Amino acid sequence: MFEIRPFHPRDWDAVWSFVKPVFRAGETYGIPRDITKDEAFLYWVKNPKETYVCVDDKGQVLGTYYLKPNQLGPGQHVCNCGYIVNETARGRGVARQMGEHSFKMAKKMGFYAMQYNLVAASNIAAIKLWESLGMEIVATLPGAFDHAKLGRIDAHVMYRIL
Amino acid sequence: MFEIRPFHPRDWDAVWSFVKPVFRAGETYGIPRDITKDEAFLYWVKNPKETYVCVDDKGQVLGTYYLKPNQLGPGQHVCNCGYIVNETARGRGVARQMGEHSFKMAKKMGFYAMQYNLVAASNIAAIKLWESLGMEIVATLPGAFDHAKLGRIDAHVMYRIL
Repeated sequence: MFEIRPFHPRDWDAVWSFVKPVFRAGETYGIPRDITKDEAFLYWVKNPKETYVCVDDKGQVLGTYYLKPNQLGPGQHVCNCGYIVNETARGRGVARQMGEHSFKMAKKMGFYAMQYNLVAASNIAAIKLWESLGMEIVATLPGAFDHAKLGRIDAHVMYRIL
Repeated sequence: MFEIRPFHPRDWDAVWSFVKPVFRAGETYGIPRDITKDEAFLYWVKNPKETYVCVDDKGQVLGTYYLKPNQLGPGQHVCNCGYIVNETARGRGVARQMGEHSFKMAKKMGFYAMQYNLVAASNIAAIKLWESLGMEIVATLPGAFDHAKLGRIDAHVMYRIL
């Protein structure tokens, strides 16, 4: 088990170093591939309600996730999260641990459900992981994800009550 | 058939007069019930790509809709719209005309599909209308809409390829 703790501004250089290539790849997130470092800070840290980092015992940042209401007003009791694992830390259970942590935190904060809005159908490993944590594919949106390598592929909406 | 034309800043007082009670009611939109006039301008006019008004031959504003990409980057080819009809103009086909107009405009602008993210399941008339225009319920999210009168009810995701 790794430590998961609130993001601190001093983490941003480390976090940006591994979220940047994920955004540039255009294979998983519904944000511009050419997003700048400052714009990414708004997206990942400033606009969400909370942001966390997963660190090892040397303080290396292995992953990060944000947590926010998916909609406002009548939709604000449903949570939305985004998770990114450092490329160098893949296969060590970081995403699973962040997922479990996020569900626990969201529930503690009073959220009723968790929703992911745009899960690229090509992201098989992530989909399997989320399903094993109780997230369900509730919709498949034809051609809704314009994958940098695969072109327009389907995207899933995933949802679970917490 | 009414005229549908681009929103002009001078329309805002008229538009606000009939969108305000809709937001305050908390029965249809995933935005704060207590949204201010200025916040609503950001939400309805400034942040979207385009905003339109539907007017009668005396220039009275009967309805309005906004149009924007539903996500960015790999999700920016899917359009999202929101529509509100002036309470005093209900039952005259304004919503249908705005819906048809929005699909035409979205297609013309190069969008591939239209998506509504949070359609309250209680909003039967709207759902029937959108279905008659080719939108399909692709997901039902349990308890995702906290309706001001009905409490937590289901919400639909609706989608169609343009």
